[in-house]
Amino acid sequence: MNNRRRARDYGIGLGVIPPGQYNAITDVPGLQVGHATINNDDNGCARTGVTAIIPHNKNVYKHKCAAAIHVQNGYGKAMGLAQVEELGVIETPIMLTNTLNIGKVADALIGYMLTHNEGLTSVNPLIAECNDGKLNEIEQRYVAEQHVLQALATASSGPVREGCVGGGTGMIAFGYKGGIGTSSRVLKTAGKTYHVGALVQANFGKREHLVIDGIPVGKIIDRDDQEFDGSGSIVIVVATDAPFDSRQLKRLARRGAMGLARTGSIATHGSGDFIIAFSTTRTSDADLKGEVLANTMIGDGATMSSFFAATVEAVEEAIINALFMAEDTIGRAGRSVEALPLDKTLDIMKNYSYRWEK
Amino acid sequence: MNNRRRARDYGIGLGVIPPGQYNAITDVPGLQVGHATINNDDNGCARTGVTAIIPHNKNVYKHKCAAAIHVQNGYGKAMGLAQVEELGVIETPIMLTNTLNIGKVADALIGYMLTHNEGLTSVNPLIAECNDGKLNEIEQRYVAEQHVLQALATASSGPVREGCVGGGTGMIAFGYKGGIGTSSRVLKTAGKTYHVGALVQANFGKREHLVIDGIPVGKIIDRDDQEFDGSGSIVIVVATDAPFDSRQLKRLARRGAMGLARTGSIATHGSGDFIIAFSTTRTSDADLKGEVLANTMIGDGATMSSFFAATVEAVEEAIINALFMAEDTIGRAGRSVEALPLDKTLDIMKNYSYRWEK
Amino acid sequence: MNNRRRARDYGIGLGVIPPGQYNAITDVPGLQVGHATINNDDNGCARTGVTAIIPHNKNVYKHKCAAAIHVQNGYGKAMGLAQVEELGVIETPIMLTNTLNIGKVADALIGYMLTHNEGLTSVNPLIAECNDGKLNEIEQRYVAEQHVLQALATASSGPVREGCVGGGTGMIAFGYKGGIGTSSRVLKTAGKTYHVGALVQANFGKREHLVIDGIPVGKIIDRDDQEFDGSGSIVIVVATDAPFDSRQLKRLARRGAMGLARTGSIATHGSGDFIIAFSTTRTSDADLKGEVLANTMIGDGATMSSFFAATVEAVEEAIINALFMAEDTIGRAGRSVEALPLDKTLDIMKNYSYRWEK
Amino acid sequence: MNNRRRARDYGIGLGVIPPGQYNAITDVPGLQVGHATINNDDNGCARTGVTAIIPHNKNVYKHKCAAAIHVQNGYGKAMGLAQVEELGVIETPIMLTNTLNIGKVADALIGYMLTHNEGLTSVNPLIAECNDGKLNEIEQRYVAEQHVLQALATASSGPVREGCVGGGTGMIAFGYKGGIGTSSRVLKTAGKTYHVGALVQANFGKREHLVIDGIPVGKIIDRDDQEFDGSGSIVIVVATDAPFDSRQLKRLARRGAMGLARTGSIATHGSGDFIIAFSTTRTSDADLKGEVLANTMIGDGATMSSFFAATVEAVEEAIINALFMAEDTIGRAGRSVEALPLDKTLDIMKNYSYRWEK
Repeated sequence: MNNRRRARDYGIGLGVIPPGQYNAITDVPGLQVGHATINNDDNGCARTGVTAIIPHNKNVYKHKCAAAIHVQNGYGKAMGLAQVEELGVIETPIMLTNTLNIGKVADALIGYMLTHNEGLTSVNPLIAECNDGKLNEIEQRYVAEQHVLQALATASSGPVREGCVGGGTGMIAFGYKGGIGTSSRVLKTAGKTYHVGALVQANFGKREHLVIDGIPVGKIIDRDDQEFDGSGSIVIVVATDAPFDSRQLKRLARRGAMGLARTGSIATHGSGDFIIAFSTTRTSDADLKGEVLANTMIGDGATMSSFFAATVEAVEEAIINALFMAEDTIGRAGRSVEALPLDKTLDIMKNYSYRWEK
Repeated sequence: MNNRRRARDYGIGLGVIPPGQYNAITDVPGLQVGHATINNDDNGCARTGVTAIIPHNKNVYKHKCAAAIHVQNGYGKAMGLAQVEELGVIETPIMLTNTLNIGKVADALIGYMLTHNEGLTSVNPLIAECNDGKLNEIEQRYVAEQHVLQALATASSGPVREGCVGGGTGMIAFGYKGGIGTSSRVLKTAGKTYHVGALVQANFGKREHLVIDGIPVGKIIDRDDQEFDGSGSIVIVVATDAPFDSRQLKRLARRGAMGLARTGSIATHGSGDFIIAFSTTRTSDADLKGEVLANTMIGDGATMSSFFAATVEAVEEAIINALFMAEDTIGRAGRSVEALPLDKTLDIMKNYSYRWEK
Repeated sequence: MNNRRRARDYGIGLGVIPPGQYNAITDVPGLQVGHATINNDDNGCARTGVTAIIPHNKNVYKHKCAAAIHVQNGYGKAMGLAQVEELGVIETPIMLTNTLNIGKVADALIGYMLTHNEGLTSVNPLIAECNDGKLNEIEQRYVAEQHVLQALATASSGPVREGCVGGGTGMIAFGYKGGIGTSSRVLKTAGKTYHVGALVQANFGKREHLVIDGIPVGKIIDRDDQEFDGSGSIVIVVATDAPFDSRQLKRLARRGAMGLARTGSIATHGSGDFIIAFSTTRTSDADLKGEVLANTMIGDGATMSSFFAATVEAVEEAIINALFMAEDTIGRAGRSVEALPLDKTLDIMKNYSYRWEK
Repeated sequence: MNNRRRARDYGIGLGVIPPGQYNAITDVPGLQVGHATINNDDNGCARTGVTAIIPHNKNVYKHKCAAAIHVQNGYGKAMGLAQVEELGVIETPIMLTNTLNIGKVADALIGYMLTHNEGLTSVNPLIAECNDGKLNEIEQRYVAEQHVLQALATASSGPVREGCVGGGTGMIAFGYKGGIGTSSRVLKTAGKTYHVGALVQANFGKREHLVIDGIPVGKIIDRDDQEFDGSGSIVIVVATDAPFDSRQLKRLARRGAMGLARTGSIATHGSGDFIIAFSTTRTSDADLKGEVLANTMIGDGATMSSFFAATVEAVEEAIINALFMAEDTIGRAGRSVEALPLDKTLDIMKNYSYRWEK
């Protein structure tokens, strides 16, 4: 039972743009998130799982989403990238898991796509990963087809569970327990309302680098994290219902790295820092068989900068939420990873005259 | 007075798709090409110039064209690339010149844009180059503002002069005289007619590599080209009136390298092989100040492959046309570069049982 | 029992650089190729398999190879690309298979790497694929762990089996039976001898586009290939024992697309055309824990162009060899795919006054 | 006479790694910086200039430096990028100027290179720019050859002038006067001492986004900057004497964007955010005519992350130094741009319990 609350619940209001109803990636209409958490000691120490992001309520293969990926540091095994670059679309849900499970998750996702699309003979599974081998017996590859199907089947709109769930179960960030975090921003432009949501699987960072809304918490709180060298990765998923095309989404994805930097990351050598951005409303122009069509789009000049700001803020807050919501975890070989101590953190911020949100 | 004719006039019908009215990049409606040729011995040996490609009849800065660039080998000084990559548009005419003139041409083009756009304070000049230093006293940088303005002012639709004109004046290809060449293809799809045009500034290739429509002419004709080591570059401009966006145009641009390969190129170490592709009908979505708009586009799945084939063919034929139309030239230090001997070439093809077009 | 012979055995001598002893990628010392062929009707129609390329005789994870990848058309599911781009090395054998088996092959390769590297918790499997769904019941995903292990275990130096073997079992190229093909070139430079080898899994091309050493065989031979629309992919692996780094290998990889173009490919919309290039002798500088080291390298200026030519030629010949060695195949739903008719092909070349090698 | 001092002089110690002797890019041995400042009202309002970064004391064309460029947002006109990407080296000094002067500066730099390298017929000038059109009559293109030569001729090691000098003369950052800033870091690893230096031309940012070492100064100080919409660019030059190759330097360059993010930037739509990274000690392997050589290098695994941290910190501090050192400026049409008010800034930081360096 998780008694911890999210950063904003404590008055930490990162950025200047308002969040959406759930302050979650699910504020993008139709988007669903599901987790399969594998946390048991039945057969070795399993602290791992899968998280599924389903872009919208329709068949994703038939209604592909415009998409782009930015790699801030490529020491990672994410798959499906080349086709997204070429065609500018995703055609499957996005799955987050650990490093050594990518083969299993890919195969299960392929099976799922075949089941739901009769006659399908080609599909581009999009999977990203971080390494949970410090807490999880990663070499056991605990994720099986059932977990992938469970994450997909239980995906839902509304509030998103954060912290030690799904792909985030065994993650470590800034020497504290990491995992899944999410946040969103709402933008009004030309009479329309758009959402930008971020979801992260946070597994990176040296404690001394941790910054929370400008406050160098990590420098002050406790530098005794010798066990954790700050290596590790982050997967960042950015979603929007603004009808951007893949070129524009690539621009958004690149801002994910700037939100990441705000939390203190330097994207270490050993990190696989991947940012996947997609639009739920942009009709795919890649695989259309029909000849000519009209599409709705937004010009870069008008409002792109506000979407950049929204992306930076949502990513920053999603990472901080992952830290706030993750709980103390004991893992393989009895290794214990503490959750970010909230009282101490809030004290540090108070001593720094942090300006709390009302 | 040039008595030489183009490849197709001799019955050499490269590819399978029909060319347009002029078999030139100007078959793309509205597109204009102009040359300023500097060929004199007034002040050293000048064998150089500038070629301008103006995308359409409207103000290019205000009506930007969707565009993309592929670099097959980047030993070249083309400028303006980063902004095309970011925003997916070109906003000036494209200028072709020699390596050491890029600064002068850039400044003159900036001046031209300022003159034609009151209040302009930023513009991205798009300029590509090859090195004509074997025939031209390149270090003299003969191109002045007047030449840039002349190429722009005299640009016109209809037939395009080829060979030793404009930026092609001092170029060498496959050990023969190179220069400007052009070609086009016409595609009908879903009741619409589209054009794909190519224009090249050809300055590359080892003689023994020359292939004309599959016939290894270079292996047979004469391998005595010791003076020319095959280093050198090519600039390829691909234009279309199909409403492709920048992602799709990047795909087209990448096919330019395949048309180039068909002529025998291996893209040597020292080559700057740049392919610039743009659409004259695709409304720019990059700099729009208005919020939301509709745009016309073509799905990749439907007909992209036929546009790829058209690009490959048009580029191949444009290169061959450059060779067919260029004339014997004597340049710096008395160096003489022979034009491709057409009688000998046609004999070789005949002996190879080449299948002539009626 | 395959009575067909390779292109060079019939006097077709593509290019000008001499091939190595086996005219195979295995001419690169230490490199091994293995196949697991799945060709049976036990449980549906299986025409598929796996091909393994093991870079050298040492532990690949510990002795990583400098590497780079060029994507000529990204409609493909190859995995492992981002880490190769970031670190400039490969750390596993390269596996070729079909589109829907990538998950299974990835998982099996991960298992193999764990078995051979105690304590490993992260590894970047490098897998590429083409779609054999026209002959193979691809949705059955016939490849199992045993096949991956078999391809790896049986990998050997020396002659390489070509045609309908391993990952090439169910492939179709130019409307004829495609599959695995290989070739090599030998370069002497500054008193040293280097090898460039290519191996392809060929599954692409419209019949009318087929060109064999300049001769437009496909235009003449038989255009009745309505069943095959020319969509499909190719994986190209380029290996060398020259000590190039990843930047230089990227340059080589880009030339793979030019060898491909020589056979008539236009890299259709639906193709996943990936070129992976690696060096067997270049010490990895990416993961070194030691501080400073010396490495041997070759300057680009000296001899790069000859390596480019070698790459173009070896890739071209590998593709033609795949066609020459593949045999008539009947697959799913009774679909029959003819091998390239060699007599007819050689006749066409003869009528074209093709210059045979002695 | 500039009475303002640098951030560190006031006790603001950004990051954790110590700076070098001058806390400037010139801490990289041999590196020189020169400015030509054009600040007069002789012929319209000139507030512009040129800054030259000369990598080392030797002939740069003959002793090229390994280099790479990352484009965080490509709305900019930097030139010379493609060749740096292909060959992994720079071969000229780096020049910083304004948007419309790039042609003039390119031509002057070409002339300079020709003068200093007899017989040169090809060279890749590397020039980046920001737009100073709010203070400077940019359309006048005031920079002439003499200014480029002056910046090069007066370049020196040791302390670097910052603020309203050279290319930074007319720049605006965060609604305050911007310009040139620099900083450095010193790393000791395996008994060797290396330097990482950064120099920026800062011309970007919305006031409300300004963050100084975590303190959200911009949110508090004064939001009345309606005249400045936060559009604008930054050029970041990162230099090191560690012998990294171009792939590794690309990794460093990407970290420049993270240092930039720490100051509050979101890399707006209209920004040209270019990061150029080079090594002064890495022998060029690109243009070597000799066959085989040994080179010294550093493995990524050992110490790359500390170089990443050094880059992030030096870039962050260089930007803050630009703000601290720039002075009130009145420009075109009487527009007045205030320098960052230091007293107010330091007060805000004090009220925020900022931890000053002793």
